[in-house]
Amino acid sequence: MKKVVTIGGGTGSFTLLSGLKKYPIELSAIVSMADDGGSTGVLRDELGVLPPGDVRQCLVALSDSSEMLRALMNYRFEEGGLSGHNFGNLFLSALEKVTGSFGLGVAEAAKILNVKGEVVPVTNKDINLFLKLKNDGLLQGENEINHNFEIQKRGVEKMYLLPKAKANPRAVEKILSADLIVIGPGNHYCSIVPNLLVSGIPEAIKKSKAKVVYNCNLVNKKGQTEGFELDDYIDAVEKYIGKGRVDFVTYNVGRPSKALLKKYEHESELVSFDKETRKNRRYRVIQTNLLDSKEVRFSKGDKIAHTRSFIRHDTEKLGKVLMMLLELSDYENIFHDIV
Amino acid sequence: MKKVVTIGGGTGSFTLLSGLKKYPIELSAIVSMADDGGSTGVLRDELGVLPPGDVRQCLVALSDSSEMLRALMNYRFEEGGLSGHNFGNLFLSALEKVTGSFGLGVAEAAKILNVKGEVVPVTNKDINLFLKLKNDGLLQGENEINHNFEIQKRGVEKMYLLPKAKANPRAVEKILSADLIVIGPGNHYCSIVPNLLVSGIPEAIKKSKAKVVYNCNLVNKKGQTEGFELDDYIDAVEKYIGKGRVDFVTYNVGRPSKALLKKYEHESELVSFDKETRKNRRYRVIQTNLLDSKEVRFSKGDKIAHTRSFIRHDTEKLGKVLMMLLELSDYENIFHDIV
Repeated sequence: MKKVVTIGGGTGSFTLLSGLKKYPIELSAIVSMADDGGSTGVLRDELGVLPPGDVRQCLVALSDSSEMLRALMNYRFEEGGLSGHNFGNLFLSALEKVTGSFGLGVAEAAKILNVKGEVVPVTNKDINLFLKLKNDGLLQGENEINHNFEIQKRGVEKMYLLPKAKANPRAVEKILSADLIVIGPGNHYCSIVPNLLVSGIPEAIKKSKAKVVYNCNLVNKKGQTEGFELDDYIDAVEKYIGKGRVDFVTYNVGRPSKALLKKYEHESELVSFDKETRKNRRYRVIQTNLLDSKEVRFSKGDKIAHTRSFIRHDTEKLGKVLMMLLELSDYENIFHDIV
Repeated sequence: MKKVVTIGGGTGSFTLLSGLKKYPIELSAIVSMADDGGSTGVLRDELGVLPPGDVRQCLVALSDSSEMLRALMNYRFEEGGLSGHNFGNLFLSALEKVTGSFGLGVAEAAKILNVKGEVVPVTNKDINLFLKLKNDGLLQGENEINHNFEIQKRGVEKMYLLPKAKANPRAVEKILSADLIVIGPGNHYCSIVPNLLVSGIPEAIKKSKAKVVYNCNLVNKKGQTEGFELDDYIDAVEKYIGKGRVDFVTYNVGRPSKALLKKYEHESELVSFDKETRKNRRYRVIQTNLLDSKEVRFSKGDKIAHTRSFIRHDTEKLGKVLMMLLELSDYENIFHDIV
């Protein structure tokens, strides 16, 4: 079976993995461990556990258990002292406590949820994400970064993790043996970059013989990646994994209704792509409609719903395109003629 | 397969079911729904769910899933806003929310936990337990009753449920078709009586052809059943299910160490039995050592540990005696010669 590794976190990974799950491939999901917002943030602070939120989304996406169990894992309490807590997060945190380690807890959760494939935390270390702005401002934590809308205006000097994180050896192993590495979709600063800051991950991607696909986001984030064109995202990722490392890019050409764009103005700017603006791109851009036509709904208890994405990839369309790319990578020589 | 129905709640039911689980019988656990203390009380108040605690203990006792999953269900959070909450209680409450009913939630939980037998809430109604003292004092709720040590001094006028509760039809069905009905062990006022107050339960027990076993508690509870002898417990139960309805009583003759008795003075009074004090008992008393020799330990997060029982039945010994009684009930005619 061909080996596909995804790298990301949050809703982006959930969507991507839901689309890939049904195919006969060996699937591994490498997941960011920098989340510190919402229910996850409270659990990190109060229980001293590693962040469960992103891992939980991947486990649920890959779960072959009943619809009921999957709904339970995504259930968010809406009242009282538990309000805002996601049940699946409590499940992972309790498992971490009972087994004595986050990794063992994730493995037990995968068994209970009958997970197809493997969910691999990018590091086993308890880390925090930092974003240093130009002129000395410092944002600490994914939650703070995610809610700051001045990042673009002030400029990013650098991002880093503290304490310094070494990659989970399992993540490195998966990357090195992969046929296809799929990066994104996902929040650029909060779900994609935190994986690439982990020492050993970019090195493994550089070393791996796998083709690299970058699933470009559908929309830019206000105050953060506003005005980004497709090529800017590639540059921002290749800064970590090496110039020219991205082989394929999926780019959505579907257009949401004007009403939807207006309703969610904080994320209304679609990523643009003009194939004339840059000469000699090494990566091939697959332009197709990847838009989910269903409207997204959030739980009443979700305290950070306003920060979540309303315009999303269609899981099936995305899965299909990626499987096509996996097939195509077998026929590299004729590839230039096709795309 | 012979059909055994247990009636109770709390740790008593957990112990009993753990002992009966391994035998080839059709086992049903009817569970009190009056709990309102600890984690369960908070969930009832804040989420408006039915009390999960007693049902959870029975599900775990009957679960055939991994030791890990069972440990998870009993895990109690020890820090932060979740402190004191039992994970299994959160699991049942979230399932009630997701399925829309406590009964459906329990059925889903039983599937996930691979439960042998069936756990049957005694009623599906959201009820509260009341204890009216002589001279007009009124205690409301299991928690308040459990923590009151003046009950015996002031005397019990009556106990009742509000709103009035009708039995879960499934509980009635199980009782009517049982070969053996096992009542207790368990806190008299808080785990045993609340089942017998549910309209339809005493009637079904009276009507059923099953033999009735009463597992007498090991110790009396200070200020509540202090000074009770074995016969007093039988009288207190037969007040509800009819004089002469109890066929067998198990009575422990094992003696805990003096050190243990001293350490847990609040429950240090062993139930006494003198076969000479009463003439013409209809019930047969099986006297044997039923004591668990292991010391009980509680989670740091358990805020009501001080109210829990430290001197407990041995699950194996209790199971064995009950299976013997189930066998014996086939040979009723020669029974008088044996016990």
